[in-house]
Amino acid sequence: MKLAWRTKIGLGLGLGLGLWLVGSGRAFAQEGPTTAELAVAMNTFFLLVAAALVFFMQAGFAMLTAGLTRSKNTTNILFKNLMDFVMCSIAFWAVGWGIAYGTSAGGFIGTDQFFLSAVTAEGEVPVLASWFFQVVFAGTAATIVAGAMAERTKFTAYLVYSFLVSLFIYPVVVHWVWSGAGWLNSEGGWGFTDFAGSTVVHSVGGWVALVGAMILGPRLGRFGPDGKPRAIPGHNMSLAALGTFILWLGWFGFNPGSQLAIASQGDADAVAMVAVTTNLAAAAGALGALFTAWLRYGKPDLGQTLNGVLGGLVAITAGCAYVDPLSSIIIGFIAGPIVVFSTELLEKLKIDDPVGAVPVHLISGIWGTLAVGLFASVEGNTGTTGLFYGGGLTLLISQLVGIVAIGFWTVATAALMFFAIKATIGLRVSKEEEEAGLDIGEHGMVAYPDLAGTPAGSSVSGALAK
Amino acid sequence: MKLAWRTKIGLGLGLGLGLWLVGSGRAFAQEGPTTAELAVAMNTFFLLVAAALVFFMQAGFAMLTAGLTRSKNTTNILFKNLMDFVMCSIAFWAVGWGIAYGTSAGGFIGTDQFFLSAVTAEGEVPVLASWFFQVVFAGTAATIVAGAMAERTKFTAYLVYSFLVSLFIYPVVVHWVWSGAGWLNSEGGWGFTDFAGSTVVHSVGGWVALVGAMILGPRLGRFGPDGKPRAIPGHNMSLAALGTFILWLGWFGFNPGSQLAIASQGDADAVAMVAVTTNLAAAAGALGALFTAWLRYGKPDLGQTLNGVLGGLVAITAGCAYVDPLSSIIIGFIAGPIVVFSTELLEKLKIDDPVGAVPVHLISGIWGTLAVGLFASVEGNTGTTGLFYGGGLTLLISQLVGIVAIGFWTVATAALMFFAIKATIGLRVSKEEEEAGLDIGEHGMVAYPDLAGTPAGSSVSGALAK
Amino acid sequence: MKLAWRTKIGLGLGLGLGLWLVGSGRAFAQEGPTTAELAVAMNTFFLLVAAALVFFMQAGFAMLTAGLTRSKNTTNILFKNLMDFVMCSIAFWAVGWGIAYGTSAGGFIGTDQFFLSAVTAEGEVPVLASWFFQVVFAGTAATIVAGAMAERTKFTAYLVYSFLVSLFIYPVVVHWVWSGAGWLNSEGGWGFTDFAGSTVVHSVGGWVALVGAMILGPRLGRFGPDGKPRAIPGHNMSLAALGTFILWLGWFGFNPGSQLAIASQGDADAVAMVAVTTNLAAAAGALGALFTAWLRYGKPDLGQTLNGVLGGLVAITAGCAYVDPLSSIIIGFIAGPIVVFSTELLEKLKIDDPVGAVPVHLISGIWGTLAVGLFASVEGNTGTTGLFYGGGLTLLISQLVGIVAIGFWTVATAALMFFAIKATIGLRVSKEEEEAGLDIGEHGMVAYPDLAGTPAGSSVSGALAK
Repeated sequence: MKLAWRTKIGLGLGLGLGLWLVGSGRAFAQEGPTTAELAVAMNTFFLLVAAALVFFMQAGFAMLTAGLTRSKNTTNILFKNLMDFVMCSIAFWAVGWGIAYGTSAGGFIGTDQFFLSAVTAEGEVPVLASWFFQVVFAGTAATIVAGAMAERTKFTAYLVYSFLVSLFIYPVVVHWVWSGAGWLNSEGGWGFTDFAGSTVVHSVGGWVALVGAMILGPRLGRFGPDGKPRAIPGHNMSLAALGTFILWLGWFGFNPGSQLAIASQGDADAVAMVAVTTNLAAAAGALGALFTAWLRYGKPDLGQTLNGVLGGLVAITAGCAYVDPLSSIIIGFIAGPIVVFSTELLEKLKIDDPVGAVPVHLISGIWGTLAVGLFASVEGNTGTTGLFYGGGLTLLISQLVGIVAIGFWTVATAALMFFAIKATIGLRVSKEEEEAGLDIGEHGMVAYPDLAGTPAGSSVSGALAK
Repeated sequence: MKLAWRTKIGLGLGLGLGLWLVGSGRAFAQEGPTTAELAVAMNTFFLLVAAALVFFMQAGFAMLTAGLTRSKNTTNILFKNLMDFVMCSIAFWAVGWGIAYGTSAGGFIGTDQFFLSAVTAEGEVPVLASWFFQVVFAGTAATIVAGAMAERTKFTAYLVYSFLVSLFIYPVVVHWVWSGAGWLNSEGGWGFTDFAGSTVVHSVGGWVALVGAMILGPRLGRFGPDGKPRAIPGHNMSLAALGTFILWLGWFGFNPGSQLAIASQGDADAVAMVAVTTNLAAAAGALGALFTAWLRYGKPDLGQTLNGVLGGLVAITAGCAYVDPLSSIIIGFIAGPIVVFSTELLEKLKIDDPVGAVPVHLISGIWGTLAVGLFASVEGNTGTTGLFYGGGLTLLISQLVGIVAIGFWTVATAALMFFAIKATIGLRVSKEEEEAGLDIGEHGMVAYPDLAGTPAGSSVSGALAK
Repeated sequence: MKLAWRTKIGLGLGLGLGLWLVGSGRAFAQEGPTTAELAVAMNTFFLLVAAALVFFMQAGFAMLTAGLTRSKNTTNILFKNLMDFVMCSIAFWAVGWGIAYGTSAGGFIGTDQFFLSAVTAEGEVPVLASWFFQVVFAGTAATIVAGAMAERTKFTAYLVYSFLVSLFIYPVVVHWVWSGAGWLNSEGGWGFTDFAGSTVVHSVGGWVALVGAMILGPRLGRFGPDGKPRAIPGHNMSLAALGTFILWLGWFGFNPGSQLAIASQGDADAVAMVAVTTNLAAAAGALGALFTAWLRYGKPDLGQTLNGVLGGLVAITAGCAYVDPLSSIIIGFIAGPIVVFSTELLEKLKIDDPVGAVPVHLISGIWGTLAVGLFASVEGNTGTTGLFYGGGLTLLISQLVGIVAIGFWTVATAALMFFAIKATIGLRVSKEEEEAGLDIGEHGMVAYPDLAGTPAGSSVSGALAK
């Protein structure tokens, strides 16, 4: 007790000292905002920067998907990648946010705060900043689907399902896991642990993608009359690589931003750790896929390696705040072969996923979510660490429960949605349109009218001038 | 020495306690900066991040403009989009900033602080951070022009006019509206309200673009011998879409950054609101343009929808801090048909604007500025809200005055400038050069030498190796 | 007035007051974190944002390098640009950081902190945030090399040397200059002054590039049978321009981030100054190169001007915090002709550097480092200003010593490395492979399979589907 000597102080002191204290306190307060206010402001700033980076992932997905598909469908793919975030913005404003974060009905669904009617609590990060951060996550889940269903899906069908995913399918899962009241990880709940969305965002997008690709069927010519797969190379590896770099960049918003705060030593430490584990897993994923594909196919394969980066990123997303750097390298590296082998598996199953959305987002997402139960050295939502860090099976089982529950929900609702679309407005373009390219059929234009290699009819129409 | 009196306190108490107090006060001060200092630092950080995002819009404009024009002019377009920010940086350093923010001469023009000679006031955001934030805005105004005058303007003419716009035409408007001393919105002034520049940046760029396009005349072949418009499709929709995504991203610096501060609860709330209204208006603009073009032309049109995004963004720029999310959706949505119909109107008037810069930046900018007078639920600079929020016509009239005054200024100075350029160094390339492409004529090279579709003569020269 | 009662306090006051003091101190602490903690958090946030921007430079280098080379090698170039950051991430995690920042052995090399085993000191920015900021710098040094060795280097050789550069060659230089204990600029050391890495990052990359390009020899057909140089134009100026814009953006992380802190008035002032000098030097570099190339070759040359931007950026990197805006314009402008003339010089020496990595990174880096000794108006590490600001030759001599020492180190180790690679796995692809393009030879695919202009055999393979 440093102050003990002061208890011996005598007479006549109070007035002057008291006034001085008050005076200095006021002077101090007048100089600027309180530290609590600054912390709120800094956290708001942090969320907005992270959200902007995640928003930019839309450009990454657009470039990646366009690059890995044929030029006759490029306009269509760019258009869909634009529209899914547009539909998502409206759907998540009107309904999605409320289902995700509104007052919980039994841990299953939110029931209010529609149309951004939520009010910011005193001294907290503005609700609108949180909404902005969440809407770009919703947009990511929606856009993942586009890649698996590319080059054969009707534009109108796409508008409808990207709207519904953001409106309902995805927000329900968010409510289960991230609302604070969800049955999967609220207090007394299952303790499912998914820091930034290996399952909540990526596997949900991946499940919808898988269901969509299966219901659609493969592209014309993807499997020969003998049933053997035939390669359909993408038209522009520069765009694909650019898209991957943009996605990698965006992940530095996606994962670190999911700490939701940075304005304390603990938050700053956590955010820095997440940035590092995210980066190392991406690098390791590239190596894992590079070596696997090299060994199996005889040459280093850029497409597989780009997807290895993304697989590593998806895999670390659930555990980035719970594992140490070495574990992040292991988790990311294993995502490499996972991407390569699950790409092969899809081919064997005759499921056509033009850009590898299912291997990257679904399978790597499942792996990464399970990996938390193995490698977490920091306690997850079950209050235990992972299997390899002395925590036993508790966390691993929680992860399995979450994966299965969310898988069932997503597959069921996605199947219902796609069959309903198929039965009404139709899901797939005509054979003629698919052969000519969706750019001509759906949009009456081509993406590269004055470069050769684009189909005849390229002068049909201009982008702007009609 | 304020504290000296305390050394006289009786019974030997004062000294010890006083010293302890001072000591602990010092210890506290030594632990870190004051909250006022932290607020200044955070606001500086915020401005610099916002400025970096706005800077990146240069890349967005370059990709958008290059993508929506023909490959034979791509080098020229990229070059101009690079050079306008180069010219702007020098012009705004030497003169532009001083005209915008120097000591006011009657509310019309700044008169000092040239060559960055301004000094930062004690306890404020560094002047250099403000300059950096302002120069990227000046660059935006300058680069808007390039699109409307693409594919036929001399490179030297472009260097001159982009320099003059940043040096003089644009800074004067900034002085009128944002300097704190300008006649359009200083205390006792007209109360013109333009939060982030629907008019100050975008309409100014748009007016210059319109005047330039009219004086230049249309591209060869843009209108047939019968006077009917003929489509001249852009060469690369991937670049156009990428450019739009980059611009959308950059707007998260452009609009939220215009709050100029984030380090208080009020600022953080405002910035978050601006991010949300900006995003929703962009999404709604896409929908508005998509549906309008779809109904009129029978197919969903990517080019129009990309411009709808941009129109929505331009329209919300004036009011993003004054309107609620629902209003932002309405404002953005209406920008969609505005873009489509004003594109048609320009065609009818035989004005050739290759990328739609006038519909997007001028017409949507006017709409967005007026919309403040209709939808503002927060008081604008007139101290009143908009018409639909009980504020009567006061704010709307202020907006009209500002739009007209700035329009007159910009049209008059731009016309003078372009006629002077035309009369001296010339504004338009020769017919032969235009047909062969400006890449060959102006730069002796082509953008895509080993892809087909580029004109003969592609091996004339390399980018680097001479 | 809660405190009024205190004016009545007589005897025995000390205790109560002492307790009140402690109490109010606690109350204050409960409101939020301390300002010291907020400062740490803000600096962490700042470093992470800067690091993300620098990371994005990888995309910039990839686009620039791919754009300035031929389409038959595009996949290979993109792949290498991806892999160097992958190799670097692993190498810098395992060893590089420890060599750079571990406990110094005589100022020459760090000896611990391998595998990220460093522990964050109380109240400091997390080590992991610093690591993240440093790893993206290491990645920049590594990736610079790729451009000079493009279109003829074996993929396996590239993996090895990019790993070794990040593991050892570059980290040793960092230790010498930035570790705080290095012989070149620690207390009592040589006072070598390189704020953000004109020499430490760019010249190191440039020296390795030069040595590599010399040992490799020129591309087939780059010099005719008569010894005259022949232009080999790049395939896509849109990508090259995009890459340059991305690099310019990334530099707003590279240079301002090198202040390492922003959470005080002094740091905020410095960071703002750095942002401005960086931008002005880039603009001036563009002008310098534009005018020089225009005068010499008769036409404004986009490739040279893009490299002028980069030369200006490299040149200002050493001195961005020490020079005023006008000096930054001079330094940047002079980098323009330096880039143009050193490009010519390399041609005369029959050294083939496809993208101009040596002029931009090595020669401009040397110029910028020397320029600190001329233009520094703020004291450098020697405690003196530059020659033109009354500081005499002290600082200039320090700069020369650093440039020469780092040059010797890098050339010696790079030469050893490349000769070892050449003697073992081989450095250059076969003549047949080079003619067909490395995409086919190394990766069994092409970058643009459905655009014309790509070599025969474009249907060999797809990116994903095997």
